[in-house]
Amino acid sequence: MRQAGRSLPEYRALRGEGSILEAIEQPELAAELTLQPVRRLGVDAAILFSDIVVPLVAAGVELEIKPEVGPVVAEPVRDRAALAKLHQIEPEVDMWYVLEAVRLAVAELEVPLIAFGAAPFTLATYLVEGGASRHYLATKSLMRTDPVIWGTLLERLADIVATALSAQVAAGASAIQVFDSWAGILAPSEYRQFVLPPTRRLFERLEALGVPVIHFGLDAGELLRDMAAAGGDVIGVDWRVPLDQVAARVGREVPVQGNLDPSVCLCPWGVVQAEARRVLEEGSRAKAHVFNLGHGVLPETDPGLLGRLVEFVHAWEPTGPKEVQGAEAE
Amino acid sequence: MRQAGRSLPEYRALRGEGSILEAIEQPELAAELTLQPVRRLGVDAAILFSDIVVPLVAAGVELEIKPEVGPVVAEPVRDRAALAKLHQIEPEVDMWYVLEAVRLAVAELEVPLIAFGAAPFTLATYLVEGGASRHYLATKSLMRTDPVIWGTLLERLADIVATALSAQVAAGASAIQVFDSWAGILAPSEYRQFVLPPTRRLFERLEALGVPVIHFGLDAGELLRDMAAAGGDVIGVDWRVPLDQVAARVGREVPVQGNLDPSVCLCPWGVVQAEARRVLEEGSRAKAHVFNLGHGVLPETDPGLLGRLVEFVHAWEPTGPKEVQGAEAE
Repeated sequence: MRQAGRSLPEYRALRGEGSILEAIEQPELAAELTLQPVRRLGVDAAILFSDIVVPLVAAGVELEIKPEVGPVVAEPVRDRAALAKLHQIEPEVDMWYVLEAVRLAVAELEVPLIAFGAAPFTLATYLVEGGASRHYLATKSLMRTDPVIWGTLLERLADIVATALSAQVAAGASAIQVFDSWAGILAPSEYRQFVLPPTRRLFERLEALGVPVIHFGLDAGELLRDMAAAGGDVIGVDWRVPLDQVAARVGREVPVQGNLDPSVCLCPWGVVQAEARRVLEEGSRAKAHVFNLGHGVLPETDPGLLGRLVEFVHAWEPTGPKEVQGAEAE
Repeated sequence: MRQAGRSLPEYRALRGEGSILEAIEQPELAAELTLQPVRRLGVDAAILFSDIVVPLVAAGVELEIKPEVGPVVAEPVRDRAALAKLHQIEPEVDMWYVLEAVRLAVAELEVPLIAFGAAPFTLATYLVEGGASRHYLATKSLMRTDPVIWGTLLERLADIVATALSAQVAAGASAIQVFDSWAGILAPSEYRQFVLPPTRRLFERLEALGVPVIHFGLDAGELLRDMAAAGGDVIGVDWRVPLDQVAARVGREVPVQGNLDPSVCLCPWGVVQAEARRVLEEGSRAKAHVFNLGHGVLPETDPGLLGRLVEFVHAWEPTGPKEVQGAEAE
């Protein structure tokens, strides 16, 4: 459950009001914020406290993350001059604090640590738009009209992210999650033409690391076949795509991750339990299932309810159709 | 092409800076704004200049449409007291100006006029949230925790919209488009449980009118089977769902509408032509195809380009696989 920390009082107490990038640059703090949800909730893995834009900062991009707004890039990248400023990274120099946070967290953790990064398309949207966007017009325009700059930008981003994640695995991370958060805004044919090749380039380097890689896109049900072709051992989906339909969409059996709607966790326990059970049942029909929310934890979520949800998932066992029917009739 | 008017200089000149609801309440103005894109672009049908919230205003809801923001409802509807204020409508009294605009437009038009309305879920999001929303937390919470209010609200909205659209058909509209713009935020199981029945109630009344009905959801690829079960002679999709995959998703052959990404129309003609050709080819593999954009026209679109696109679509003829291959090899 990404961003589970946001719902914890101990997180808010420790994190304070400062910029998230400043918090990430303090390895002891970042490691502790990584550990908090594991301690409190008893989940089976930790996700590093970090942000997808960290490799951009390491690569020389001037940006800040504004509360309620998201990343804001000082100079949008839309031409060759801007592109030239985006240099490759040396993680031990340019993002040493992340690697130190990984080492500190892994030393304390009894569960695996998941490192994460964004796919090149999603990072490109921030660089080209200059921040979050509604229609992604500048991104789509650059993509469709200047394939040279576009291709160069996405390949460079693929290399930067691959280098950043490789270093985190070397520092002790046991798995990787790649977020292509905004790929779902594209028609599948455009994803295949403009986005799949550089994304494949990223995954080729990640596959060489020998750790499991999860590939997640928000609202990307139409792209699952192409995203799976780009790479990933596990396909993560949000709550829109039933877990037992992912295999058909991808064209082969594949381990899945997801997909409880985070807003369900604002409801009374009875609602949460019923929805979690449905997710578990749908997941049990996939090749393998990593239970998770379909997107980040909402800050207003009750941590007590999240702990209860973790217990429920741990205790749940797949039942045959007959027993399930019996349970429903209770 | 909905909202094609927004890109026209004659639209901006006539419409001025006033509120859209004020413009809608002037039948001569609304009729003229309906006719403008047909005259300029040579499209095969007109869409009434109106807004999906008009039946809410007719039903007694106090709301305004703020530029860049969308509808803002004075008092969100979340309890029985608020629900009680939402009365059924008498179109010739409560929205006489819409019917007059329909009559005036139809008298001038040489092509069919399409009336449109929103499905009950999409209207409910505005009423429950009090306006546009990011996560729709209040809507989802009401839906999951108070099925009585939820069901009553959606049924009442279904009746209001059905009454509004029936009156527009009686006044001369030749077809109906139903927008369930925000249904795509739901998991399919929740759509089936909480939204499909009242949506079906709306379509049952529309089917009795004997005119074609288009059912469109933005970003609703996962819901196509259930939306088609709710109703509609034609399924409209945005650019995310390839037109030649709609039948498989719905589970039967079905006429489709769509689905050029409106942002493509900001690109040079070569890009537009290539994407339009792809859409036409994918559409030619469906049972029938109404060419359209996948969502509303962006205001910054060049009307000259839209006219050229209409010509291109009119001139296009389906080719066999062999000829298509030849054309690609040029």
